[in-house]
Amino acid sequence: MIDYDRYDRVRALHWEGDALSLLDQRRLPLEESRIVCRDARSVAQAIANLTVRGAPAIGIAAAYGVVLAAQAHAPGGGAVSADLLADELQALRTSRPTAVNLFWALDRMQRVLVSAGTVAALATEAAAIEREDLAANRHMGVLGAALIEPGSGVLTHCNTGSLATAGFGTALGVIRAGYAEGRIARVFNTETRPWLQGSRLTAWELHKDGIPAHLIADSAAAHLLASGQVQWVIVGADRIAANGDTANKIGTLQLAVLARHFGARFMVVAPGSTVDMRTASGADIHIELRDPEELLAYGGTRIAAEGVQAWNPVFDVAPAALIDALVTESGVLERPDLEHMRARFG
Amino acid sequence: MIDYDRYDRVRALHWEGDALSLLDQRRLPLEESRIVCRDARSVAQAIANLTVRGAPAIGIAAAYGVVLAAQAHAPGGGAVSADLLADELQALRTSRPTAVNLFWALDRMQRVLVSAGTVAALATEAAAIEREDLAANRHMGVLGAALIEPGSGVLTHCNTGSLATAGFGTALGVIRAGYAEGRIARVFNTETRPWLQGSRLTAWELHKDGIPAHLIADSAAAHLLASGQVQWVIVGADRIAANGDTANKIGTLQLAVLARHFGARFMVVAPGSTVDMRTASGADIHIELRDPEELLAYGGTRIAAEGVQAWNPVFDVAPAALIDALVTESGVLERPDLEHMRARFG
Repeated sequence: MIDYDRYDRVRALHWEGDALSLLDQRRLPLEESRIVCRDARSVAQAIANLTVRGAPAIGIAAAYGVVLAAQAHAPGGGAVSADLLADELQALRTSRPTAVNLFWALDRMQRVLVSAGTVAALATEAAAIEREDLAANRHMGVLGAALIEPGSGVLTHCNTGSLATAGFGTALGVIRAGYAEGRIARVFNTETRPWLQGSRLTAWELHKDGIPAHLIADSAAAHLLASGQVQWVIVGADRIAANGDTANKIGTLQLAVLARHFGARFMVVAPGSTVDMRTASGADIHIELRDPEELLAYGGTRIAAEGVQAWNPVFDVAPAALIDALVTESGVLERPDLEHMRARFG
Repeated sequence: MIDYDRYDRVRALHWEGDALSLLDQRRLPLEESRIVCRDARSVAQAIANLTVRGAPAIGIAAAYGVVLAAQAHAPGGGAVSADLLADELQALRTSRPTAVNLFWALDRMQRVLVSAGTVAALATEAAAIEREDLAANRHMGVLGAALIEPGSGVLTHCNTGSLATAGFGTALGVIRAGYAEGRIARVFNTETRPWLQGSRLTAWELHKDGIPAHLIADSAAAHLLASGQVQWVIVGADRIAANGDTANKIGTLQLAVLARHFGARFMVVAPGSTVDMRTASGADIHIELRDPEELLAYGGTRIAAEGVQAWNPVFDVAPAALIDALVTESGVLERPDLEHMRARFG
């Protein structure tokens, strides 16, 4: 049995009825402070500046951002429309480009704007998005863990835990479930340059859980996989194309190639909201380039010499052919391809 | 024509007749300061704490360390013996475990201790080791560059430039020569976690050279290689086993696997002193584990939460089968294997 309550202690998002409180992930793990967003623009800003990050979490944050926009335009709780909220919707929609959960959540909210057009209906929808995400994660944890042979070692990348979702996590949820069930004997996680989601966030979550784990440099993954200590590489996703190609944090592609090369298996864990059947393949996914400063300095300390240039793509695409299992709340798809994706996700 | 003088401005080591001056690579690029070692123990310490690093450079530093030990025991310049210097030789020999150049240089010095046994002969030998390294690098630069088709993009890892050698560099020497000859159109270099030799040292050397380059996160190599912008991955080496397996900075193995996967070629550039025919294969190479703190903190700023554990191997082994070309000063070996290694290196 998995004691889910123990994972509820970390909450990336907390809806307060008229404000969205966000755990400031830029300051973790050194400082646990929260930022309170009282309007849609500050939510959009919090998404853009990584106060809140992780594909499912930014979708949920954006949904609550729409509620805040509606409350601002209809302070008494009256009717609102997509036209009335157009500026705020646009700000939320352009806050980050790669994770499709953002657009999926905004589309859901927009449908409620059209159908009901009330603050109350929007608040109900945002809460449903959040609640469904948590339920999906718990279910995916069990589905994914069932694929793991007892005694296995796993490697994960970036942060896909409570901090990236409504709770429990996607890839980290599978690791939590697999560890609770005694299937996972060894956990490794990458530091995940440049933003260090692994060192700062995943290592912190695992340490809070009491799950023994080792942090590694991103570039140590090959040496680790070659050593035979890892049977499954388990990652989340920011967008899954119709053919199964999966965009996720930069470094995911190398892990997929290395897993195949060294005989480990590669699992992608993401809610169905991450699947984007309108995007044919990974080649059509827009990869966000972020500020080169993320590589050139750390915590205000300059790393590289003045004048040095950097290229900072923060996502890459693992081709479907390298994915052994795609876990969503609707089940496990082994070796995803266009045909099976269509059958499952329409 | 390659204007070698322009690359002589950066000198990792400078022998002053009775002291070894080292550019402090822990402080680069923010500060260009030197540490002056007046005895063998401080040279051993400077090697262990990475004031000087890079396989050829630590070999040269150790050789001068032996001269300092001899001067201390024979201040008037008289006779010395291996017995007399045993403690200092041991300190130098145990300063770092993986790069074989260290042991190779100490073996050369020890032979002179036995044959001549004078301070003057030792000083002459150390200077010869340094001079030969520079000559080897310039020669390897031309040999390696000749393999590169005009218009190519290259990716390098760690630092293999003037800072890692007597001057010019090994893999970076090939890039310098290839750029000077108009063969190289694009240069990328990894940041090289955890010690950031790429961001701090290689980017600094390339910027001083005026060679346009882009720094990338280690984990962005796959995305870069998938984009087709890189035709050659070019790295140095710390130890090359008899079968061609090559130990080098952690992350080299992933680059070798990725280069093969994405159709780029993989070149190892190292002086013959890096070849260790007494080590049968990569499995026999001792991989140095360094302090986990290198991953857990940066520049005195804590990154990970207290209690987080890290695993920090700082080298890995690229198998010979993934190496397209091994460049030493004695020529280019394509697809190195035991047979060809024996024919070349005995």
